[in-house]
Amino acid sequence: ESANEFQSQKDSLTQKLQDTESMNQALEARLSELEQRMRSNQREREAFRHSLRSLLQLLDGKLFELTELRDALGKLLESS
Amino acid sequence: ESANEFQSQKDSLTQKLQDTESMNQALEARLSELEQRMRSNQREREAFRHSLRSLLQLLDGKLFELTELRDALGKLLESS
Amino acid sequence: ESANEFQSQKDSLTQKLQDTESMNQALEARLSELEQRMRSNQREREAFRHSLRSLLQLLDGKLFELTELRDALGKLLESS
Amino acid sequence: ESANEFQSQKDSLTQKLQDTESMNQALEARLSELEQRMRSNQREREAFRHSLRSLLQLLDGKLFELTELRDALGKLLESS
Repeated sequence: ESANEFQSQKDSLTQKLQDTESMNQALEARLSELEQRMRSNQREREAFRHSLRSLLQLLDGKLFELTELRDALGKLLESS
Repeated sequence: ESANEFQSQKDSLTQKLQDTESMNQALEARLSELEQRMRSNQREREAFRHSLRSLLQLLDGKLFELTELRDALGKLLESS
Repeated sequence: ESANEFQSQKDSLTQKLQDTESMNQALEARLSELEQRMRSNQREREAFRHSLRSLLQLLDGKLFELTELRDALGKLLESS
Repeated sequence: ESANEFQSQKDSLTQKLQDTESMNQALEARLSELEQRMRSNQREREAFRHSLRSLLQLLDGKLFELTELRDALGKLLESS
């Protein structure tokens, strides 16, 4: 009886352990996936910021050229 | 002897189970933290896109006004 | 004879004087017309310059607003 | 007496004719100067309009480039 009881306790512990280990693997897989997504998001974010920064530099160039144009109009007006 | 052996096996399983459950809790905490960060990143990204969209609409307005100004200059030139 | 000759000279002078006075009137009319046109041109030129100056001020305003917009985009980029 | 009178009339006519011819020359000089100035003004006006037209074409180019930039920002926003 005592041996049976021991065996039953051992089986129960073994089952619990297997379940917990399975849960562990699922959690690790989920974590790994999330970390992958975060790295991917981070790369996208950096690429986006890089593109936006390039467009801002182009915008700066255009604003500079518009300002030169405005000055040329001003000089034309003053000279006339 | 057999009883001691059983007890030893039971202790070893119990220890392993506790370790695995601890690992589980740590993984769940890490997952919860990552999910929190991802939601936070997502909210920031949406706020950023919202602000960028607003600035683009303002830019559209300025481009429209500049085009009107250009047309007014053109009409002034033609009328003179 | 002498009296006839005198009369003929007087007639000739009178005719020349009339022709020259007619020419004078024509020249004065032409001058008056040109002066009128120059004043009119001058008024048009001033109105044109006034309009152009107003448009340049509007352009300045738009360039200022575009620069503010560019700065807002830059701040958005830095804050993200 | 009559001869003197004739001579006096002739002198008076001759004087008037000379004055009127002088006036004529002065008017013609003034006219010529005004016509010169009008042609000069006209040339300046055409040079001014030519410069203004060139600047408007540059402005058109800048507005086109700004619109392309705006579209690139819009696409960047949509793609993100």
